[in-house]
Amino acid sequence: MEYTQAIQEIKGADEAAMASAREYCDSLIKPFGALGKLEDLAVRLTGVTGRAKNKFEKPVVVVMAADNGVYAEGVAAAPQAFTLLQAVNMTRGICGVNVFSKAAGADVVVVDIGIMNPPGTKSIIDRNVKRGTDNMAVGPAMTRKEAESAIGAGFDVASELFEQGCDILGTGEMGIGNTTSTSACAIALLGIAPELAVGRGAGLTDEALANKIEVVKKALAVNKPDGDDPIDVLSKVGGLDIAGIVGCYLAAAFHRKPILIDGAISAVAALIAARLCPLAKDFMIATHRSTEPSYDGAIKELGLQPFLEMEMRLGEGSGCALAFPIIFAACAMMNEMGTFADISFDDSVLVDIRETD
Amino acid sequence: MEYTQAIQEIKGADEAAMASAREYCDSLIKPFGALGKLEDLAVRLTGVTGRAKNKFEKPVVVVMAADNGVYAEGVAAAPQAFTLLQAVNMTRGICGVNVFSKAAGADVVVVDIGIMNPPGTKSIIDRNVKRGTDNMAVGPAMTRKEAESAIGAGFDVASELFEQGCDILGTGEMGIGNTTSTSACAIALLGIAPELAVGRGAGLTDEALANKIEVVKKALAVNKPDGDDPIDVLSKVGGLDIAGIVGCYLAAAFHRKPILIDGAISAVAALIAARLCPLAKDFMIATHRSTEPSYDGAIKELGLQPFLEMEMRLGEGSGCALAFPIIFAACAMMNEMGTFADISFDDSVLVDIRETD
Repeated sequence: MEYTQAIQEIKGADEAAMASAREYCDSLIKPFGALGKLEDLAVRLTGVTGRAKNKFEKPVVVVMAADNGVYAEGVAAAPQAFTLLQAVNMTRGICGVNVFSKAAGADVVVVDIGIMNPPGTKSIIDRNVKRGTDNMAVGPAMTRKEAESAIGAGFDVASELFEQGCDILGTGEMGIGNTTSTSACAIALLGIAPELAVGRGAGLTDEALANKIEVVKKALAVNKPDGDDPIDVLSKVGGLDIAGIVGCYLAAAFHRKPILIDGAISAVAALIAARLCPLAKDFMIATHRSTEPSYDGAIKELGLQPFLEMEMRLGEGSGCALAFPIIFAACAMMNEMGTFADISFDDSVLVDIRETD
Repeated sequence: MEYTQAIQEIKGADEAAMASAREYCDSLIKPFGALGKLEDLAVRLTGVTGRAKNKFEKPVVVVMAADNGVYAEGVAAAPQAFTLLQAVNMTRGICGVNVFSKAAGADVVVVDIGIMNPPGTKSIIDRNVKRGTDNMAVGPAMTRKEAESAIGAGFDVASELFEQGCDILGTGEMGIGNTTSTSACAIALLGIAPELAVGRGAGLTDEALANKIEVVKKALAVNKPDGDDPIDVLSKVGGLDIAGIVGCYLAAAFHRKPILIDGAISAVAALIAARLCPLAKDFMIATHRSTEPSYDGAIKELGLQPFLEMEMRLGEGSGCALAFPIIFAACAMMNEMGTFADISFDDSVLVDIRETD
């Protein structure tokens, strides 16, 4: 199915099931609300699946890899070839996202959605839409049609994963230069000042940061993206990796599976997905608070709150992989904790324990 | 060995090993510092064990259960019998700490260090020092000797766990009324205002909170604990559960094992342990930020930073259990990620990727 058609069919969270789940959660042997965000997570998962008790058996992190033409402006100090190199390393299991995924029992799936040079390995799924974006500082990063194709590719890849049994999906990316495109999208979509939306990526110097801000300003001035048209923004100053992740969020909403947000790039992709289809928000789960500045603005509009404060900025989907065990703990709470009924106390005591010290 | 003697033999973190671990961490295929607090955790674990690569095979959460005489002042709405009831439920595997521990592959060990009525089950370790503290609003909660015995009991229990193979320990407690004693200790030790250190526990009303603040003020006025003498504070306005946990921290430092701080009660116990033996701090790891107000002051003096922001206030050691997978991920990072040397890039490129976007 085309993602454009799927969007029309997306329904939001199952509110009735969520109310029941909250009620069940309140019957567990703990003071009222004492498990904080774990309780909210459990209820949110119920909104996605329709069930109060959930168990996720096949977690996957999908990594969208793509190059960025804006690299030519000196916004990243790493060689552009690192996009491909790290994508390949991810198929070898030696990157951050791999080791955290392994610890959580999750698989990692790497997708070439826009790498400049062909990976030449079957371990990377070939959904290449374009061999890197064009330089957004001199013109649009890609055509509207290319952006739509990349969203469609992400939608297809995620849909296939869900059809193959994946029951919870983490989103990741690899792309030298992609915090630059992410910042430009955040500015266009949220109307924030460039100085507040452009960060040091993985550690730029003051001078390099100043250049990056100028490059982002130039890209916005040259392309004049329409902040009310998310695909216009995505195509003019976005990236193929961001577009692919947008498609993943739409697929998760369509297939009613929970999908985890990683860092800034993943969060801005989530924002774009939510602008295209507001109900898609109901299927998203924030994980860790990225130190990249565009993260907070995107997460705020989505109405979400991360629970891990790791000061991480690796990307790759590493924050999703790290968060899986916390999500699973929220499920264990619902599945395995006793209730006040189990321990045979009457209602007056129920009230007591919930108000306890 | 007596804990008082053990304290004399405690040595701090292995600084040389930590420097090597930091260097190794910087050689992993990721931008410099991009894994934030996970990197700090890995280095901290190295300070404890002396090894850059660690794997913890036998995590345990120890739960110190005790009653509080101050219950008589109406500081907790739950029946006092809940201390024993929940201690027993923990041996049945149905409490929050149980389900999160099970998910993390950790055992839960419950200790009667001061429950009012004998549990009458062998599943709870009997190290009862006193059948509940006395009411601190009218006199000292316990004698100095009793406080020292409870620290010693905690030291012994934790030492036995380490001798039996436990390689990482979480701290937990169960005791109706114990946020009241914890707040009183925090005020006496840190000199903060009662209004800022006394919280709603598991959900007191405004009126009950106002009463709790008055009770804490009264306990401090009646007992006049000496803030520079941690055992004076502990015995006059503390609790047997807090004292037992203090002993666990000292045992961890002596046996050079990492020990996790849970919420406010566990954090104030950590503060007392650090006042008794400043080097004990090197073995402590903060996990989640409790919403109980005395937590922040204690953690700040310890110089630690939690990484989970769950808005939890359950106690039981539940936050430690939830944090184990994050600690294990920090280990996996060191044990399993590739290095720049593995991927055959020369030094100039190393510098590049660490400054990348």
